[in-house]
Amino acid sequence: MTEKPCIICVAITGSLPTKANNPAVPITIEEQIESTQEAFEAGATIAHCHVRNDDQTPTSDPEKFGRLLEGLRKHCPGMIVQLSTGGRSGAGRERGGMLPLKPDMASLSVGSNNFPTRVYENSPDLVDWLASEMLKYGVKPEIEAFDLSHIVQATRMQGDGRLKGPLYVQFVMGVKNAMPPDEPIFDFYIETLKRLAPDAQWCAAGIGPAQLLINEWSIAKGGHTRT
Amino acid sequence: MTEKPCIICVAITGSLPTKANNPAVPITIEEQIESTQEAFEAGATIAHCHVRNDDQTPTSDPEKFGRLLEGLRKHCPGMIVQLSTGGRSGAGRERGGMLPLKPDMASLSVGSNNFPTRVYENSPDLVDWLASEMLKYGVKPEIEAFDLSHIVQATRMQGDGRLKGPLYVQFVMGVKNAMPPDEPIFDFYIETLKRLAPDAQWCAAGIGPAQLLINEWSIAKGGHTRT
Ligand SMILES: [Zn+2]
Ligand SMILES: [Zn+2]
Ligand SMILES: [Zn+2]
Ligand SMILES: [Zn+2]
Repeated sequence: MTEKPCIICVAITGSLPTKANNPAVPITIEEQIESTQEAFEAGATIAHCHVRNDDQTPTSDPEKFGRLLEGLRKHCPGMIVQLSTGGRSGAGRERGGMLPLKPDMASLSVGSNNFPTRVYENSPDLVDWLASEMLKYGVKPEIEAFDLSHIVQATRMQGDGRLKGPLYVQFVMGVKNAMPPDEPIFDFYIETLKRLAPDAQWCAAGIGPAQLLINEWSIAKGGHTRT
Repeated sequence: MTEKPCIICVAITGSLPTKANNPAVPITIEEQIESTQEAFEAGATIAHCHVRNDDQTPTSDPEKFGRLLEGLRKHCPGMIVQLSTGGRSGAGRERGGMLPLKPDMASLSVGSNNFPTRVYENSPDLVDWLASEMLKYGVKPEIEAFDLSHIVQATRMQGDGRLKGPLYVQFVMGVKNAMPPDEPIFDFYIETLKRLAPDAQWCAAGIGPAQLLINEWSIAKGGHTRT
């Protein structure tokens, strides 16, 4: 289907699940490094990382991200490390406090949408600040597209220099009250991205029960995929 | 193209422009009634209404909406009156305080998105509450779709009974940081709505410089239109 290799992106932890949900969820930095190394040895190329407090709640603490980054560079040489700037781990500019650590990549939301019980707020000011920090520290953003306008917005930000191309966009489906898994919409996401940013690459993540379905679509349609 | 008549929806005032922007903007209830009557006589079927404070700032004051509704019922008999529950005129449940007045229609946002300088917040709780008030008072919602997932969400809400079909959906394009005017996306909006809610009707509104373009697309593609 495609000549380019399929990149497997592994999200070891996420921001929400705890040991109570699944005792295998790696929470401490040491557990995360160990778990990522297993995925790396199994073929994963990108590690999408969140960090946690001792009580397992999500945080954006740059010190914790720093220890994780250091451990991954040592134990998974050549692996692309992507740190989350997502809104479940902090508020406002806290979310980008780890960007001066210069990870290879960081996630970036460029619009707002609903989540299961609240608004996922990414104000225009915050988006622009996070994007400018990524430019400043040479961090490649993974655009998190929870809706169609987020894809369009990313291409506009590339057009006016707020983002550097080629874009790397992740389609996210399956979050309640945001976009559900829907194949014609998935295809239109790909088509729209190709039309507005022909050199862009894309991957996709299915949340919860949508995970395997989205993996299948991604691989079949020539994208990268998130496990 | 279509057998059904094209409904013209007139938005006399909106929530933002003041007399300083355009001396012809009707601000007082009396000015709004007069201006709507002119549009009604010229063929408009739906009046999309906002009300203002004496200082021209937007409000959701049910007393003001009540006087407007009464005036329109008297001076524009048979006109469909649609009151705005939009977020520029109030916060939280204030936005639906006029629904007990039982206007024919009210606008309803079912998701969140970015606006030019801020997040347009429509939390899942607020959306569900506004929808339930509309069911309770027999008010027909006009779904304001600022992004693709809003169309999908409306069809899901119809599916589980939170909204009563047939849906009436307005595609909104041209708000900075939300969805720009884009014809393939406009066509996909129509296609998606037809696929997920075959009995739905749609209209479209272009904001600012996008207004005439969106009017043209709406009329050519068989929708209703907003002036
Ligand atoms: Zn990815
Ligand atoms: Zn994440
Ligand atoms: Zn309005
Ligand atoms: Zn309309």
